[in-house]
Amino acid sequence: MYSFRNDYSEGAHPRILELLMKSNLEQNVGYGEDEHSNKAKEYIKKSIKKEDADIHFIPGGTQTNLLVISSFLRPHQCVITADTGHINVHETGAIEATGHKVVAMACSDGKLTPDIIQKALDIHTDEHMVQPKLVYISNSTETGTIYSKKELSQIHDICRKNDLILFMDGARLASALTCRTNDLNISDIPDLVDAFYIGGTKNGALLGEALVICREELKKDFRFLMKQRGAMMAKGFVAGIQFEALFQDNLYFELGSHANSMAERIAEGIKEGGYSFFTEPCTNQLFPILPNDLLEELSKNFVFSLPEKVDEDHSVIRIVTSWATTRESVDRLCESLIKQ
Amino acid sequence: MYSFRNDYSEGAHPRILELLMKSNLEQNVGYGEDEHSNKAKEYIKKSIKKEDADIHFIPGGTQTNLLVISSFLRPHQCVITADTGHINVHETGAIEATGHKVVAMACSDGKLTPDIIQKALDIHTDEHMVQPKLVYISNSTETGTIYSKKELSQIHDICRKNDLILFMDGARLASALTCRTNDLNISDIPDLVDAFYIGGTKNGALLGEALVICREELKKDFRFLMKQRGAMMAKGFVAGIQFEALFQDNLYFELGSHANSMAERIAEGIKEGGYSFFTEPCTNQLFPILPNDLLEELSKNFVFSLPEKVDEDHSVIRIVTSWATTRESVDRLCESLIKQ
Amino acid sequence: MYSFRNDYSEGAHPRILELLMKSNLEQNVGYGEDEHSNKAKEYIKKSIKKEDADIHFIPGGTQTNLLVISSFLRPHQCVITADTGHINVHETGAIEATGHKVVAMACSDGKLTPDIIQKALDIHTDEHMVQPKLVYISNSTETGTIYSKKELSQIHDICRKNDLILFMDGARLASALTCRTNDLNISDIPDLVDAFYIGGTKNGALLGEALVICREELKKDFRFLMKQRGAMMAKGFVAGIQFEALFQDNLYFELGSHANSMAERIAEGIKEGGYSFFTEPCTNQLFPILPNDLLEELSKNFVFSLPEKVDEDHSVIRIVTSWATTRESVDRLCESLIKQ
Amino acid sequence: MYSFRNDYSEGAHPRILELLMKSNLEQNVGYGEDEHSNKAKEYIKKSIKKEDADIHFIPGGTQTNLLVISSFLRPHQCVITADTGHINVHETGAIEATGHKVVAMACSDGKLTPDIIQKALDIHTDEHMVQPKLVYISNSTETGTIYSKKELSQIHDICRKNDLILFMDGARLASALTCRTNDLNISDIPDLVDAFYIGGTKNGALLGEALVICREELKKDFRFLMKQRGAMMAKGFVAGIQFEALFQDNLYFELGSHANSMAERIAEGIKEGGYSFFTEPCTNQLFPILPNDLLEELSKNFVFSLPEKVDEDHSVIRIVTSWATTRESVDRLCESLIKQ
Repeated sequence: MYSFRNDYSEGAHPRILELLMKSNLEQNVGYGEDEHSNKAKEYIKKSIKKEDADIHFIPGGTQTNLLVISSFLRPHQCVITADTGHINVHETGAIEATGHKVVAMACSDGKLTPDIIQKALDIHTDEHMVQPKLVYISNSTETGTIYSKKELSQIHDICRKNDLILFMDGARLASALTCRTNDLNISDIPDLVDAFYIGGTKNGALLGEALVICREELKKDFRFLMKQRGAMMAKGFVAGIQFEALFQDNLYFELGSHANSMAERIAEGIKEGGYSFFTEPCTNQLFPILPNDLLEELSKNFVFSLPEKVDEDHSVIRIVTSWATTRESVDRLCESLIKQ
Repeated sequence: MYSFRNDYSEGAHPRILELLMKSNLEQNVGYGEDEHSNKAKEYIKKSIKKEDADIHFIPGGTQTNLLVISSFLRPHQCVITADTGHINVHETGAIEATGHKVVAMACSDGKLTPDIIQKALDIHTDEHMVQPKLVYISNSTETGTIYSKKELSQIHDICRKNDLILFMDGARLASALTCRTNDLNISDIPDLVDAFYIGGTKNGALLGEALVICREELKKDFRFLMKQRGAMMAKGFVAGIQFEALFQDNLYFELGSHANSMAERIAEGIKEGGYSFFTEPCTNQLFPILPNDLLEELSKNFVFSLPEKVDEDHSVIRIVTSWATTRESVDRLCESLIKQ
Repeated sequence: MYSFRNDYSEGAHPRILELLMKSNLEQNVGYGEDEHSNKAKEYIKKSIKKEDADIHFIPGGTQTNLLVISSFLRPHQCVITADTGHINVHETGAIEATGHKVVAMACSDGKLTPDIIQKALDIHTDEHMVQPKLVYISNSTETGTIYSKKELSQIHDICRKNDLILFMDGARLASALTCRTNDLNISDIPDLVDAFYIGGTKNGALLGEALVICREELKKDFRFLMKQRGAMMAKGFVAGIQFEALFQDNLYFELGSHANSMAERIAEGIKEGGYSFFTEPCTNQLFPILPNDLLEELSKNFVFSLPEKVDEDHSVIRIVTSWATTRESVDRLCESLIKQ
Repeated sequence: MYSFRNDYSEGAHPRILELLMKSNLEQNVGYGEDEHSNKAKEYIKKSIKKEDADIHFIPGGTQTNLLVISSFLRPHQCVITADTGHINVHETGAIEATGHKVVAMACSDGKLTPDIIQKALDIHTDEHMVQPKLVYISNSTETGTIYSKKELSQIHDICRKNDLILFMDGARLASALTCRTNDLNISDIPDLVDAFYIGGTKNGALLGEALVICREELKKDFRFLMKQRGAMMAKGFVAGIQFEALFQDNLYFELGSHANSMAERIAEGIKEGGYSFFTEPCTNQLFPILPNDLLEELSKNFVFSLPEKVDEDHSVIRIVTSWATTRESVDRLCESLIKQ
């Protein structure tokens, strides 16, 4: 039985574990002020080409989202998101629990556009309504799509024009930045968004997301907020060491690349088998539409998630690859797809 | 330079790391519903002799506290704590951020008593005041003291009588339960409190606290709350595996024992050196009162925390030992204390 | 210039003012525990035929909504509403500010149905999503429509079946219960909903809403919540006296009736003028579609709200009548509508 | 039976009622944007000599406090108050319910001093603790004392120096500003605090507090916050008209004066009777220490609040006078005090 359910089924990439082992008995200061965290921050700053960025390591993605949004907004302000956005659908109201409305806009492919953002602005006209102040996007999105550099620039422009904060959820940033159709460089991002995070959990770490705050006035007192929301790890170096391993060389991008190439192979298999996709394959999440009897057959050897009925005989499923996905399992899956 | 600053300076105990390594490439389901987490829960249930307890693994202590308290209380209800309680002093208002007042009562040794709890009840008389509903205690406390079985039973009684929920913060439970003067067994606890947590971060884990909910009506929907507060790790097995290692045999208690015996040695050294204590030594936190010039001398080789002025010539410091504290460093510290 | 903008343009009905004057120098106990409030509660209980209801007088509607919802829900639970619901659109995120997601469902006429509620339940499947727990409806709705007894019973049934709390916003209950097509008696309501409020502000009072809690387990400690949200007036008798005046005889319903009959006249005028409606006229809010040049003409003598473009030449406006609307102004408006 | 329990036992001063009556059938725009509210604001601005102040009318005091504090603070920031402060003791955790810790400092007479504020600053040293950002004072205080101009200036200075916002709760400002020992003019206040409110409820209005925001950067979007917390009255003119009546001439101060002179008379009676005070009489709240048997006798004709045991034979009670307190009742009380 092999699982393609998600990209957080295995532990950590061996090079990460190695560094954790190696430094295990060192004495480090607590709360993320240790040397490993500092090094990791330096590596990341170099990678994103933004020396004055503030970087914080946070255990998980939902926590990062709720922390960032509640830190940046005043009580009457809201966040605009695609209706498929993780904060709208899969975080049990984490944002609302901090007091803020999530304004979810209908989107065709998981992506916001300047037009959609403008529409959200247009329907919020006075003090009887929440005030739009932050735009939340994910890259790659929850449906596996990515933002091109041009698309992101256009969103950046409308945000600037309307004094909106732009925040990018990068839980799957590695896959976004290393997929075939991507034209965005990680060092482009700090110029285009006000804050973003570089996901570790879904790209080879045991846990941890690296939040990058780019805009000066958003940096103030952030560690207070982290502590208050329970996001400041006592052993902060555990996250620091992992990001050190991911960014001291090219590992972060290698892992994203691997996940993507595994997904590409599967996508080819699906096409070869004659099947179509719910959304065009692009990153490490695939949404093929498969006949139910094939699905039943596949389920004997493979695990997927989210089977959703398309018509009487077909369902769309989600196949996710990761840094840990093996070629053998991919080959076996392709075989099963084609021979049917 | 050796640090006695806290009990979260090093990584994980080697036997924990080993199990993490061994299971690293296994595929596990996410969000804490994996086999390792299940096993760990079974081990813990056996240890606490409470088969029907609900157990959840949560990344950190502040997060556990805010999650538990906000889950158990209605909006108008408050938590009673010792004024030294971690939730009152060192969590950046995490409890208040979830909407609840922390009623901090003056205590001599970090411990609540039935009398102090009664006093808190007596001053909250009507609907113009918050309603006391939960009692928060730490064991061991923030000043290194512990609750005897009798003391805990008495607190349990007043809580039952007044329909108060009793919650024990066990960030340093290992040290509390294995110290020389302790008469409380871990299996006594579920009968005496409604919920408690077994601290991993400060007793040999990379991160993780095991929350145990004992009272039936407090269990409902807890995983919703975890997710909402960002406390449900995608790779929940990372915490599960660590608690598996801690509770599959006696490791959890061995580590507490080691920390305590290291602290005892140091305490003897302090006494031999002719110095006194701010609070009687008991667990892995020591609060000796030392002459400032000795302190200056020691600071060349050792790191402590919280130096606080007692009089012109003396300060109280905090010395903390842990599962990782070495005998050599303890011996060197004792030597430095005595030769002065 | 005469305003049909809303139903809260004038002060209080003279009989209310009279009672306020008459009792002005009496000494009353504070916080709503006075004799006038008690009498008002008795009158209301008699009217709704529910002796064991808990009744609380609250200054305003948004406050009542946020208070009720945050009192009844646990942190992970959400409220289901029509997308046009006041809590979704016009309360500046008041519900979210107390921590709860508002799940807004598309509705054709401002009204929820069992099917729509079921759909909301169906899309909330696990702990990664908020948990639906309360259904919010308004009667009359924000688009002027009402619930029939049968419709309300069906909603009641699906709520019971799914353990959902049913809460009715009755800011305009008077108009709903006295309109021509209504078949719901005020004494039917306590059997069909768990809590509702009887709007005073929009039916002749200076301010004040009478919240009625019908279900036993929702009553507990409600006055604590009122105080905490700033909804417990020091001079509670100011609201109590007004509801005494409204319910000691038939005044409450007379005022609703008057508003409706004024609206009916205007609706007839609109029809006579040959114009149509965006939603069928029913209660004291009318949404006619008028030619822009007529609108311009009317604007010289009348004030309306919400002009919204329908096509190049037509707009929909909102005309609201109230207890204070005069026949002369209605006649003048009709004249202007017909002569065009 | 005559009540000296509080200053909110009666309705409104006749001149206020008169203006309400007179304007009752006028049509006003909603939400406080009407002409009466505007006039009232102009009168107040003239009185406080601060043309650029932002003024908002809010139904009640607790609501004003929670609204102001939650609007001005970021999530990790706290408010410093005297331990007797209304927000600490008598608002059912209203401030905490908006997410902020109330740091209550021990004070001898209900008043903060620069030293006490400094102490609060000194104990909040890093990001593991809440960050002091707002100082809350009441004038007159909950124990009937007042701030001199010099005292207030000193508090203003330490706030400026430490970038703290200074907010004055003026629920009983009228009594404070018109008492014999006061040297503070209402027009001094805008230079000394960043925001304050002028209490109406306890000085002759049916309800309503006039919040004055003096500092520019605190004004932004305040009406959004008001709406969100349910503090924006649909019939805002009901509060506006009352403050118009209070400030179009000297009524506001006359009413405070009356309450004080009534209290003075009673204080003289108490002294003549040979009794002492718990806190020195000053404003409209008196805290005499009386023998229990006298108290029992008085209770046959008068109502007081808060009897609290001083020793076996004596209790301290609270006597409150108001704009409505009659000379006859005061004379009768004095008689009863002296003849004993």
